[in-house]
Amino acid sequence: MDKKKNISMAVIKRLPKYYRYLKELLKNDVERISSKELGEKIGFTASQIRQDLNNFGDFGQQGYGYNVKDLYNQIGLILGLDREYTAVLIGAGNIGQAIANYRFNENGLNIAAIFDANPKLIGIKIRDVEIKDIDYLDSFLAENNIDMGIICVPRNNAQAVCDKLVKGGVKGIWNFAPVDLVIPEDVMVENVHLSESLLTLIYLLHDQEN
Amino acid sequence: MDKKKNISMAVIKRLPKYYRYLKELLKNDVERISSKELGEKIGFTASQIRQDLNNFGDFGQQGYGYNVKDLYNQIGLILGLDREYTAVLIGAGNIGQAIANYRFNENGLNIAAIFDANPKLIGIKIRDVEIKDIDYLDSFLAENNIDMGIICVPRNNAQAVCDKLVKGGVKGIWNFAPVDLVIPEDVMVENVHLSESLLTLIYLLHDQEN
Repeated sequence: MDKKKNISMAVIKRLPKYYRYLKELLKNDVERISSKELGEKIGFTASQIRQDLNNFGDFGQQGYGYNVKDLYNQIGLILGLDREYTAVLIGAGNIGQAIANYRFNENGLNIAAIFDANPKLIGIKIRDVEIKDIDYLDSFLAENNIDMGIICVPRNNAQAVCDKLVKGGVKGIWNFAPVDLVIPEDVMVENVHLSESLLTLIYLLHDQEN
Repeated sequence: MDKKKNISMAVIKRLPKYYRYLKELLKNDVERISSKELGEKIGFTASQIRQDLNNFGDFGQQGYGYNVKDLYNQIGLILGLDREYTAVLIGAGNIGQAIANYRFNENGLNIAAIFDANPKLIGIKIRDVEIKDIDYLDSFLAENNIDMGIICVPRNNAQAVCDKLVKGGVKGIWNFAPVDLVIPEDVMVENVHLSESLLTLIYLLHDQEN
C-alpha cells in the first residue's frame, strides 16, 4: 500500500464524493460506468477522475470503464471502511445531539459513549447511548479502545477536552468547536467550522451583489 | 471594489479564519500585531498573510504591523457583515434544530422562518421562530425578502427544496444535505457535507495505522 503515501489532501477530500456517487449508482443497479460519465455526474473531468484513482491502483479498463461495485468496494477499502471505528462524543448540546442522532453507522462509526458536564443531560440516552459525566472521560478512555473523539463543546473548553482525548489514546479528532486545536503530529484532526462556512457563503452573496 | 473580483476560493475561505482570530485578539485587548505574529497564531506564514490581505487593499504599515480593530472591521466589511442577512431554514430534524439553535446572529444571520413537513414539528418554536408547514414556503418567499436558504432536509428532498428556494428568489444556499445541488450560476452555494468530513477523517486514521 505504499502507493497511498504522499497523496494530496485535495485528492483525499474527493474520495468520499466518489464513494457517495458510486453508492448511488449501485442503488440504481448501474453495473459499469466510464470515467466520462462518472465525471459528468460528479462535475469533474474524466481525466481528473482517472488521475485521482490512479493514485490508489489500477481500476477500470480501456473501453469498458469501471465496474461500479468493484470500484465502490475498492474505494471503501482505501477509505478504511473495512472495519468499525469507535468514538466518544463530548458535549451533548445542539450540535452534539444532532451528531449523536445522525446515522453515521453506515460509515462504520460507532459512538461508544457521550459525555457532558451538564447534570441535566447526564443519564439521558441518545439512540441508546447514555450521556455520562465528563469526569469519567479519562477512565472510560483508559478502559476502552477508542479511535476517535468528537468535540462539540464550546470554544473555551475545546482544547482541554482535546488534551484529555489525546492523553487517553484517541488517534483522530472530529472537531466542531470554532477553534484550531493544538495536537501532536500523529493525531489526525478534521474540523467542521460552521461559522466559517456561513461567513464564506455571506462573502459570496455580498460579492455577487456588488 | 474591482480589486475584489477573481479572488481565489482558497483566499476567500481563509478570510473567516482571519476574522475569528482578530476578534479573539480584540477581546484580549491587543491593539496591534505584525503579520509574523498573526501568522504564528493562525499557522500561516507572514508572507501568505500579507499576500492574502493585499487582495483587498492596503492594510498594515511597515514597522507597525496591523491595527487589530481596523483590520477586524475591514475584514468584516469585505465579508459583507455590514448588513444583516435573512434566511429560511428547511428541515427541522436533528441538524436543522441544531443550526436553528446555534447563535449565528453574531455573524449577521437572521433566521426568519423554519419549515418542515412533519405535522408533529409544525407550530413548535425554536428560539422564538415558529416551525411552519412547508406548504407555505412559496408564499413566504414571495412575501418576504429572503437572502438565504438553509437546507437540512433528507437527501431525496434536497433538490426539490432547493428549486423552490431558487424560484422564490433566494441568492445563497447553505446546504447540509449530502447531495450536490443543481443551481443557477448566480446563486451561491456552500456545502457542509458531514459524512464526507467523517470519511476524510477515517481515511486519515486508517492511513496513519498502515
